[in-house]
Amino acid sequence: MLTPNPRVVFAKRPGTGLPVPGEHLVYDASRSIDLEAVPLNGGFLTETLMLSPEPFLRERMRDLSVDSYSTHAVVGAPMVGFVLAVVLRSEKEGVNPGDHMLGLSHWEAYTVQPYMEGRVDFKAGKYPDWTEDTDAMALYQVGDPKGIYPWSRYFSVLGGPGLTAFCGLEAYGDPKKGETIYISSGASAVGSILIQLAKEKGLRVIASAGSDAKVEYMRSLGADVAFNYKTTPIAAALKEHGPLDIYWDNVGGEAVEIAIEYLRLHGRVILCGAISEYNVAPKDRHGVKNLSEVCKKRLRIYGLMVAEHMATLGPRFFAEVPALMAQGKVTARETFTEGLENAADAFVKMLQAGGAEELGKPVVIVAKE
Amino acid sequence: MLTPNPRVVFAKRPGTGLPVPGEHLVYDASRSIDLEAVPLNGGFLTETLMLSPEPFLRERMRDLSVDSYSTHAVVGAPMVGFVLAVVLRSEKEGVNPGDHMLGLSHWEAYTVQPYMEGRVDFKAGKYPDWTEDTDAMALYQVGDPKGIYPWSRYFSVLGGPGLTAFCGLEAYGDPKKGETIYISSGASAVGSILIQLAKEKGLRVIASAGSDAKVEYMRSLGADVAFNYKTTPIAAALKEHGPLDIYWDNVGGEAVEIAIEYLRLHGRVILCGAISEYNVAPKDRHGVKNLSEVCKKRLRIYGLMVAEHMATLGPRFFAEVPALMAQGKVTARETFTEGLENAADAFVKMLQAGGAEELGKPVVIVAKE
Repeated sequence: MLTPNPRVVFAKRPGTGLPVPGEHLVYDASRSIDLEAVPLNGGFLTETLMLSPEPFLRERMRDLSVDSYSTHAVVGAPMVGFVLAVVLRSEKEGVNPGDHMLGLSHWEAYTVQPYMEGRVDFKAGKYPDWTEDTDAMALYQVGDPKGIYPWSRYFSVLGGPGLTAFCGLEAYGDPKKGETIYISSGASAVGSILIQLAKEKGLRVIASAGSDAKVEYMRSLGADVAFNYKTTPIAAALKEHGPLDIYWDNVGGEAVEIAIEYLRLHGRVILCGAISEYNVAPKDRHGVKNLSEVCKKRLRIYGLMVAEHMATLGPRFFAEVPALMAQGKVTARETFTEGLENAADAFVKMLQAGGAEELGKPVVIVAKE
Repeated sequence: MLTPNPRVVFAKRPGTGLPVPGEHLVYDASRSIDLEAVPLNGGFLTETLMLSPEPFLRERMRDLSVDSYSTHAVVGAPMVGFVLAVVLRSEKEGVNPGDHMLGLSHWEAYTVQPYMEGRVDFKAGKYPDWTEDTDAMALYQVGDPKGIYPWSRYFSVLGGPGLTAFCGLEAYGDPKKGETIYISSGASAVGSILIQLAKEKGLRVIASAGSDAKVEYMRSLGADVAFNYKTTPIAAALKEHGPLDIYWDNVGGEAVEIAIEYLRLHGRVILCGAISEYNVAPKDRHGVKNLSEVCKKRLRIYGLMVAEHMATLGPRFFAEVPALMAQGKVTARETFTEGLENAADAFVKMLQAGGAEELGKPVVIVAKE
């Protein structure tokens, strides 16, 4: 018996602009699958419950001539990103029907694992040493939260955003009680968790975002100072509420330049992906003119990539953060979009830095249990 | 009996351009001193033997509205910089006639210590936390090299340049045998010592400077690749001889941007003063557009100020580097200018990055013993 098996296909590289649903990302409802009979070849069959639109997926869509920290997405194959899936059938030892799994998979209703379409031959790709084998972020079993928190937390606090906030602050922030941190994109998936972790560390938190609703949200998470950068220039806010000990950058460009100006002696800058630059050609990016301040104030600037801290900080993360969640000290908001057919829209909306009206981590519901 | 006591006076702040001898720095031969009778008030009288033109002296000449890592030089007072002096008379316990001393003093033939003119009231100055009390770098006794090396080494290998190279590489370079370092201004006071220390660490050294004679000099110090950036673009050289693990920046601006492009995963950038920017208004400085590379390659960028590493790394420096000198593994070249009346010229020539034809650390001979 055939069941419809829709997917979102990465149809065309978007160059330097925003991807356009229907052109670069195409919803394909023409396929079907026999859930009982499809060969598993020693693997397992998953049903996708939720998927996570994330900035790094845009990075994967870049032109083949451009290198980056991730491998290239494959044109003509389904989008590959973080999903929460449930196992329907399995031939793999240790993986059983009913298991919930998190990790990379297709933007697709049902998938035989390991997925083969869209997989990059990493060795043959001749990538530079800073490129991760993205497909290695395979599905792994996750525990049932049993109603203590919703499954969607695996995309926010307990997923990439939470790990990123935790590992960056621990590895590079060197936070000391009473110090001040400025977080750009404070209402974003990473930023919203970071505000709470920073407060737990005893930091004074300044956070910015692009709407008044987000400002309220950041305040509700504990930010001591929250401002809308569209109505209050960053420099004015930092002049009033700085100086800073730590700057967490989620946007890149001019924000880095301004923050450097307001950092104190021995300040730290953590660069965590420059969303403002993902869709801008290198030559058109904002040039940071004040690196001599880095010398003067003996600043340290770090490029953060969460994957490489998993081995050292992952165990502490999984020991500490769920406990903070249970105590209500760390929470998250997820913004839900229903239906795989709307996944591309949700993704593009997330990429419009500051433009999205929704609060919290975008999550696309593909199926309900 | 009166003895002539000429001095170089800091007469006027030069704004954003190069200082002009006779206008901003004025040689004043009108003064005299009674060496036998001048009151010491519990201090001591020194005769200046040599003085050291250094980039940080330009930083001290900036407008009062601009903050920095050093205090402001005082208009109307003698220039204050690193000197080697010999004690003529003393009322201070532990300081005896004949002692040789290194540290800050006047650009002047004879000075009663501690010098009072040109001293900054640090507390009253309301400086930010990254500003050092520059006058605290007072004279301290140094050992007689007894002919093993010349006294002028106290301005190169055994002085600020050597300390800077050693502390920066140890504190931030994380050098591993076989890695590649690129050193801009490799023929400078700091760069020339760094080439040798880097080779001692087993690094492959790429170094650049602004003349063919300097290229030859860098090769003689052990650089594996040396090039003239006026005839070979930095990007072309790094494309051919990179990638890099460490970039040591002595110039700032565009060089940082290019080096970031050619750094490997986990590369380190050590910013050690941006001589190309000292005489350029902030808005006219080169904007670094590729900080997203810092994230991608997980680079670390450090601002270096040698003073703060003295307590932790100073003892190792003084244990290791003189031994390397005695073995002939670390040497230096000093370029001598005779006469206090030529000190201002020597200083300005040093500031013309890449323009100076002389090799090695500039030293002004004020008096001979």
